[in-house]
Amino acid sequence: MTMKRKKVSVIGSGFTGATTAFLLAQKELGDIVLVDIPQMENPTKGKALDMLEAGPVLGFDANIIGTSNYEDTKDSDIVIITAGIARKPGMSRDDLVQTNQKVMKAVTGEVVKYSPNATIIVLTNPVDAMTYTVYKESGFPKERVIGQSGVLDTARFRTFVAQELNLSVKDVTGFVLGGHGDDMVPLVRYSYAGGIPLETLIAPERLEEIVDRTRKGGAEIVNLLGNGSAYYAPAASLVEMAEAILKDQKRVLPSIAYLEGEYGMNGIYLGVPTVLGAGGIEKVIELELTEAEKEALSKSADSVKAVMNVLA
Amino acid sequence: MTMKRKKVSVIGSGFTGATTAFLLAQKELGDIVLVDIPQMENPTKGKALDMLEAGPVLGFDANIIGTSNYEDTKDSDIVIITAGIARKPGMSRDDLVQTNQKVMKAVTGEVVKYSPNATIIVLTNPVDAMTYTVYKESGFPKERVIGQSGVLDTARFRTFVAQELNLSVKDVTGFVLGGHGDDMVPLVRYSYAGGIPLETLIAPERLEEIVDRTRKGGAEIVNLLGNGSAYYAPAASLVEMAEAILKDQKRVLPSIAYLEGEYGMNGIYLGVPTVLGAGGIEKVIELELTEAEKEALSKSADSVKAVMNVLA
Amino acid sequence: MTMKRKKVSVIGSGFTGATTAFLLAQKELGDIVLVDIPQMENPTKGKALDMLEAGPVLGFDANIIGTSNYEDTKDSDIVIITAGIARKPGMSRDDLVQTNQKVMKAVTGEVVKYSPNATIIVLTNPVDAMTYTVYKESGFPKERVIGQSGVLDTARFRTFVAQELNLSVKDVTGFVLGGHGDDMVPLVRYSYAGGIPLETLIAPERLEEIVDRTRKGGAEIVNLLGNGSAYYAPAASLVEMAEAILKDQKRVLPSIAYLEGEYGMNGIYLGVPTVLGAGGIEKVIELELTEAEKEALSKSADSVKAVMNVLA
Amino acid sequence: MTMKRKKVSVIGSGFTGATTAFLLAQKELGDIVLVDIPQMENPTKGKALDMLEAGPVLGFDANIIGTSNYEDTKDSDIVIITAGIARKPGMSRDDLVQTNQKVMKAVTGEVVKYSPNATIIVLTNPVDAMTYTVYKESGFPKERVIGQSGVLDTARFRTFVAQELNLSVKDVTGFVLGGHGDDMVPLVRYSYAGGIPLETLIAPERLEEIVDRTRKGGAEIVNLLGNGSAYYAPAASLVEMAEAILKDQKRVLPSIAYLEGEYGMNGIYLGVPTVLGAGGIEKVIELELTEAEKEALSKSADSVKAVMNVLA
Repeated sequence: MTMKRKKVSVIGSGFTGATTAFLLAQKELGDIVLVDIPQMENPTKGKALDMLEAGPVLGFDANIIGTSNYEDTKDSDIVIITAGIARKPGMSRDDLVQTNQKVMKAVTGEVVKYSPNATIIVLTNPVDAMTYTVYKESGFPKERVIGQSGVLDTARFRTFVAQELNLSVKDVTGFVLGGHGDDMVPLVRYSYAGGIPLETLIAPERLEEIVDRTRKGGAEIVNLLGNGSAYYAPAASLVEMAEAILKDQKRVLPSIAYLEGEYGMNGIYLGVPTVLGAGGIEKVIELELTEAEKEALSKSADSVKAVMNVLA
Repeated sequence: MTMKRKKVSVIGSGFTGATTAFLLAQKELGDIVLVDIPQMENPTKGKALDMLEAGPVLGFDANIIGTSNYEDTKDSDIVIITAGIARKPGMSRDDLVQTNQKVMKAVTGEVVKYSPNATIIVLTNPVDAMTYTVYKESGFPKERVIGQSGVLDTARFRTFVAQELNLSVKDVTGFVLGGHGDDMVPLVRYSYAGGIPLETLIAPERLEEIVDRTRKGGAEIVNLLGNGSAYYAPAASLVEMAEAILKDQKRVLPSIAYLEGEYGMNGIYLGVPTVLGAGGIEKVIELELTEAEKEALSKSADSVKAVMNVLA
Repeated sequence: MTMKRKKVSVIGSGFTGATTAFLLAQKELGDIVLVDIPQMENPTKGKALDMLEAGPVLGFDANIIGTSNYEDTKDSDIVIITAGIARKPGMSRDDLVQTNQKVMKAVTGEVVKYSPNATIIVLTNPVDAMTYTVYKESGFPKERVIGQSGVLDTARFRTFVAQELNLSVKDVTGFVLGGHGDDMVPLVRYSYAGGIPLETLIAPERLEEIVDRTRKGGAEIVNLLGNGSAYYAPAASLVEMAEAILKDQKRVLPSIAYLEGEYGMNGIYLGVPTVLGAGGIEKVIELELTEAEKEALSKSADSVKAVMNVLA
Repeated sequence: MTMKRKKVSVIGSGFTGATTAFLLAQKELGDIVLVDIPQMENPTKGKALDMLEAGPVLGFDANIIGTSNYEDTKDSDIVIITAGIARKPGMSRDDLVQTNQKVMKAVTGEVVKYSPNATIIVLTNPVDAMTYTVYKESGFPKERVIGQSGVLDTARFRTFVAQELNLSVKDVTGFVLGGHGDDMVPLVRYSYAGGIPLETLIAPERLEEIVDRTRKGGAEIVNLLGNGSAYYAPAASLVEMAEAILKDQKRVLPSIAYLEGEYGMNGIYLGVPTVLGAGGIEKVIELELTEAEKEALSKSADSVKAVMNVLA
C-alpha cells in the first residue's frame, strides 16, 4: 500500500541507455538509476544531471542519478541492460559474443545481489544469447528475464509502411517472430494498416523490399551514422516494454522469451508474441504457422543456437 | 484555414540539435527538418531516421528528415539554430566568437532565403552576440529573432532548489536577467517554492551557493562529461520556447531579446522576461530593479558588449 | 505562416458536446466555442467557464467560451455537431428524423455563414441521414462533411474484447462497416489482438455475443443510465476524428462518408474505412467483401435509405 | 515490489465524482471504482462503462467499475469522497451540515472497513467540517485525511488573472489560506505571473475585483448552470491532489489539513499550504502572516468552528 515511486535501473550509460533513462523520466515511470563502469562514472553522472535539469521544463518529477556503484540500484523494480560492446570492424562474432557474455555475467551478479525481485530486460547484442546468459546467471524465473528485439523490428517496419502508404504510424502494425535482424521472421499476413492486411494494400515485391529494409534496419542506421548505432528507436522500445510491466498493462508485444515447448522449441530464448504485465512475460502466445514460417523460425533458432554454442 | 502541420527546422545535428528535434516530434509540434553541413549529411540522416523509427512506439506522427540542403527547410514556421563550435582548450574567446559569427551568417542567409516569415531561436554561444548577429543578418523584425539562456538557467536553479527542499520541480520557480552563465543576474526575490519566496525557506548563504552552482551549471556538466557539453536541458528549453510560439501560448519566459530602451539598454540583446506567443516576443516585461540589480545588469550588459565588439 | 491557435466549435452543449469540448481543451487542439440555443445560453456559459477553470490545474491553454451567438464561431477550422433531440418513449422514428433534420438545417445555415471553410463532423442521430442533411444544406464538398459512428462502435468492441482476453485495449482493434448500432456490419476477420485475428483467440459463439453486445452498446448504456445516453466514449470518438484532421495525421478511421460508387453505393452516407487528414476525408478505402458482407452492407444501406426517405 | 496497478475509489457518482474518475483513468493513475448508493447503482455502472469504452480511443488502460458495494473498493490506495447533497433553496445551513455529516459517517465506516491504509480526500461541502467528520470517524492519522478547496480556489483565481493579463495559465499562480469560498483568505502578495508579483501588474482595485470573483466562483457557476454546480474544475483539483500522493510528487498544494498548533490553530481543519506525497500531507508549511492576514484567517477559522458546532 506504499506509494513510493517505482525504481528503474539502466545498466550502460551510452546513447541507448541514456535515451532510455530520459524517456522513462519523461513518462514519470519512476526514479532512475543510470549505471556504468567506474571509468565512466563522471560522464554518467553528467548525463543524469543534465536530464534531471530538463525536468522543470518538461514537467516531470523523477530522481535521476548516475553511478558506478550497484548499491544505488537497490530494490529496483525493473533493470534494463544495455551494457556491452558493439561489433567493430575486424572483430569476429565469437569475440563479440564472449566479451559481452562476460559483461552480462558481471552485470547480472550485481543486479541480482541488490534487486532480487526485479524484472530484467536485455538489449545487448547478440540479444538472444545475451538474454539467455542473464537468465542462467540470475537464477531468476524465466518470466522475469526478457529480451528486446521485436518491438524495434516492428517499429521500423511500421515506419516504412506508413511512409509507403502515407498513413499515420498509429494505424500500422507489424508482426515478427524469431531472432533479431537477419534472422527475423516477418509474419506479413499479420501486419495491417487500419486493420486491413498489408498484402491487399502493397504489391508483393514492394512489401518484400520493405521487409528486407526492416531486416537491415540496424545496419542502415549504422551506415548512415558512420560511427555508432541506433539509439532513439531502441530506447523507445525498451521503455514500451518497461511501461507495460510497471503499469501491468497486459500489452501484447513481441519479446525474446525462454521457450520450453512453445513453437516446438526448448531451452532457447527466441522472439515470440507475449503478454507483458506486472508478472513480466505473463504468457507466450502460440500461433499456427505455415510450413514456410515454421521453417524460417527453425532456421532462426539454429542461428541463435549457433551463437549459444560460442558461450563459455 | 489550412490544417497542414507546422514545420520546424533545427540547424545543427549535434546532441542538442538532435535532442531538440526528438522532443519536438514527441510533442507532435510539427514536421521536423534537421540540418547540418554536407560533410555531416549522412549522420544527420541517420539520426533523423532513427528518431522517426521511434514514432510508432512513442505514438507520434511527425515527418523527420535529415539534410544538408536548406531547400528542405522551405516555409519553416520556426527555425532553431544550434550550429557552431564549442570553445576548446587553448582557443581564445575571440576566435570562438568570430568562428561562430561566420557560422551564424552562413546559416542565417540560407534560413532567410527559404523561410522569410519564420521565427528564429538561437542557442549558439556566446548566445547574446550570436542572436544579435542573426538579427542583423536576417533583417527580421526583432520580435522574430530570439535567444535562449534564461529558461535553461532557471531550469537548473529550480532543479537544485527542488532537491534542497525535497519538493516537486513543478512548484519551484526561478528568475534571471542578463547574460548566460557567469553574467547571469539572478533575482532570487522573484523565485519561489509553491509561491513562497525562497528567501524565507533557505538560508542566505545556502541560497547563494545554489545561485553560484546555477551560474556554473554549464561548466559542471562539461566537467563531468569530460568531452562535450549539456544537451538534454538545453534542448528542453528550446522546445518550451518553440511550443509557446507555435501554440500561441503567451508564456512568460525569459528570453534574450533586442532591447530598445527597456531596462535603460539600447541596441543590445540581453536576457529579460518576455511574453512568447504567435508573434514571437510579443512583449518585454519591465520590472523595477534595486540599485544592486541595476548594477549587476549593467555589468552583464558590458560583458555582452565586450563580445559584440569582437564581431567582424 | 500564422501560428494563431486552431478553432473548434461544438454545437450542442449537452453531455456529449460539453465532454467533447473538455477533451479538445485537454489536448490543446485549439480554442473552443461551445454553442447552444439562446434558452441554454447561461448553462452553456457555465459549463465553458467551469472547464476553463480546470485549465490551470490540468495544464492546458485554451480559450473556451459558451455562447448562443454563431458569430462567435467565425472562422472555425472544425465544427462538431452534437445538437438535436434523443428519441423519447412514444416518439416515432419519423418524428425524430424530422425534428433533428430541422435542427441540422438551422445549425448548418449558421455554421456555413461564419465558417465557410470548416470541416464538419456530425454525431446527431440518426447519424447517416443527419450527415446527409448537413452535406446537402451546407453545399460543402463531400470530404468536409463527415459522420461519426464507427470509431465509437469499434471502441466498444475493443473494450469488450480486451476484457474477454484480459489484454490492453491498446493492442485490440476492431473493424465495422455500414450504419450505426443495429445496422452495424462488423468485419470480425479484420479485428485483432496484438495483430492476431480474434477468430483464432475467441470461440465463434462468444465472439458473436461480443458483436451483439457491441451492436446494442448504445442501448446498454441508455438502459443503465435510465435517463440519458452515453457521452464519454462518443465524445472521445469525435475528438479522435477532429485531432486527425487538425494535425493532418492521415489516420485510418471508420467514418460515415458520402459514397459515389464506392462499395457499389451511390448518393448515400455510410460507414466505411477512410483516411482522415487536413483535407477531411482524404480517401475512402475499398475492400473486397465476401458475399455475406456485401449482403449485410446492402441491408445496412437499405436502412439508411429508409430513414433518408423520411427527410423532408 | 509488486507492480499491480494502484486503486482509487471515488465515492459519489454525480458529475464531480464521474469527472474525477474519468480524469484519473485518462492519466492511467490506477484502476477506478466509482461508488454510489444502491438506488444509483445502475446509472453508476452506466457511467463507468461509458468511460471505460472511451479507453481504446483515448489510449488508456484502466479498469473502471461502477458499484454500490463497498467490498469492491477493497484495498484502495486513495479514496475520494464527493458524496452528499448540495444546499437547496429553503434549506438551512444546519440541515445541510447534518445531512452531509450522516453521509460522511456512513461512507467513512465502509471505506475504513475495506481500505484501512487508504488516504482519503474529501470534497463534500461544507468541506472543512466534513473533512473533520471523516477524520474523527475514520480514526486515521491526520495526514491521511485531507480536504480539497484551495486548489480549486487558486485555479479560478489563476484563470481570471490569466484572462486579465492575456497570459498563459501555466505561468500564473495564486495562493489562498483558510476556508472555502466566502471564507477564503487570499494572499495576493504570494501570487505571480511569470514570477512577477501580481500587485505590480494589476491595479489594486482590479485585483480586488478578481479576488472577489474568485470568492464567489462557485456561486458564479451555480447561477449560470441554473440547476447544478461546478464539476470540471473541482474534479481536476481532486485529481491533482491524488496524483501528487500516488506518484509521491512532494507537490506544494493548498490542502485542508488538521492543525495542531500551526498558525495558532488547534483541533480544526483549515486550508493551509502543504506538501503532498506518498505519506499524504507530509508537511504543513507555516508562513509569517501580516496582522491583517492573521485576522482574516482567525475569522475564517471562526466560520469553520461555527459549522463544526452544528455537527452532531
